[in-house]
Amino acid sequence: MFITFEGPDGSGKTTQVGQIANTLRERGHHVLLTREPGGTAIGNQIRQILHDMKNQAMHPRAELLLFSASRAQIVEEVIRPHLKAGGIVICDRFFDSTYAYQGYGHGLDLETLRTITQFATGGLRPDLTILLDIAPEAGIQRRLSALAQGEEWNRLDAMALEFHQRVRGGYHTLASQEPGRWVTINADRAVAEVQADIVAAVEGRLDKQS
Amino acid sequence: MFITFEGPDGSGKTTQVGQIANTLRERGHHVLLTREPGGTAIGNQIRQILHDMKNQAMHPRAELLLFSASRAQIVEEVIRPHLKAGGIVICDRFFDSTYAYQGYGHGLDLETLRTITQFATGGLRPDLTILLDIAPEAGIQRRLSALAQGEEWNRLDAMALEFHQRVRGGYHTLASQEPGRWVTINADRAVAEVQADIVAAVEGRLDKQS
Repeated sequence: MFITFEGPDGSGKTTQVGQIANTLRERGHHVLLTREPGGTAIGNQIRQILHDMKNQAMHPRAELLLFSASRAQIVEEVIRPHLKAGGIVICDRFFDSTYAYQGYGHGLDLETLRTITQFATGGLRPDLTILLDIAPEAGIQRRLSALAQGEEWNRLDAMALEFHQRVRGGYHTLASQEPGRWVTINADRAVAEVQADIVAAVEGRLDKQS
Repeated sequence: MFITFEGPDGSGKTTQVGQIANTLRERGHHVLLTREPGGTAIGNQIRQILHDMKNQAMHPRAELLLFSASRAQIVEEVIRPHLKAGGIVICDRFFDSTYAYQGYGHGLDLETLRTITQFATGGLRPDLTILLDIAPEAGIQRRLSALAQGEEWNRLDAMALEFHQRVRGGYHTLASQEPGRWVTINADRAVAEVQADIVAAVEGRLDKQS
C-alpha cells in the first residue's frame, strides 16, 4: 500500500507522518517513510537546489522539472522495490504537490504537468492520499513558530499568501475529482485529534485491501 | 540568431564553439556563448549532479528531467533575453542532445521527450544546428587524451560504446528529418579544417537572415 500526505508546510505533515509510520510499524507492517523532494542521495542534492534561498531566480518550469527528477529517482530506487516486497510506503508529498503548487499555484498547464508526471512516475499512483487541510494564514503562523525554533526558512516559504490560497483551492479540486483516493482532514486542531483521524483513514483502507 | 552545436564529447565541440564565437565577435556581433547543462547558477548546480561519479544510480528518466530543468532555466534567464536584444546565442548542446542521448541512446519514448522539451523551452528552437560528426571510437580516443591532460572523467563517459553508436545514429536521423536546420560536419579532421566549414555554415545562414 502506497500512502501519500499532502498539505501546506505548517500543516503538521512531518509530525503526523512520523506518528502514523510508528503506529503501523508497531502493528507489524514493514513501513518505509520518505519525502519529496529528496528520499534518495540524488533527490537530496535536488532538494538542496530547490530550497536554497540563493536560487530565487528559479523559473517555475525549471522548478517543476527538478521536482519531477527527484520523483523519478525515488520511485525507481526506493518506492517500487519496497511496494514489491509487500511493504507500506508513506510519502510526505507526491505528485499532487506538483498539481497544487506548480499547476494551481503557478498556473502551469495541468495537462502538460500530467504528461510529465506520468513520465516521472512510470504510472505509479498512491492508493490513499491524505490532505492535511489548513487555512494558509494558520499554516504560515505555524511555520513562523517552527522557524523561530530554529527550522530553516526555505525558498517556497517566501511566496505570497495569495499563492498559498490558490494552492489550497487546488488541493480541494483534486480531492473532489478522486474521492476514492483522497481523505481530507482538518489539520487546524491538536496533534492527537488529527492523528486519530489519520489512523482511522489508514485502517479503513487497510481493511478494504485485505 | 540561435546556433546550437551537437555531437559526442570528444568531437572538439568546446574548441570549435570558442573559435566561432570569437570570429563572430571580431565581426561586431554581440555573441553569447553558453552550454548545456549549465549556463546559469542554477544550471551549474544541476550540471554538478549530472556529472558526479557518485550518482551512478541515476535513473534515465531522472537524468532527462534534470537536463530539462537546466534547459528551462537557461532559456528564460539567458537565451531569450539575449536574442531579444538582437544578439547571437551559441549553445554547446541543446535539446537535440536529449533526443540523441536519452531518446536514441537510452530508449526513452521520443514523443514524451518532445512534450517535455516543448515545456522546458517554451517552444524556442535553434535557427541553425551544427553536428560535429565523429565515429564513437575516435571520439572516445580524443576524450581519453583530454582526460590524460587533466580533464575530468564524468558519468556520461562511462557509458558503453554501443550506447554512443546509438547516439550517433540518432543524430543522423534528426539531421535528416530537418535538413533546413542541420549542417553535418566531419569532425575527424584538423581543428582548422573543421572550423572553416563551421564559419562557412554560419556565414551562409547569416546572409540568408539579413
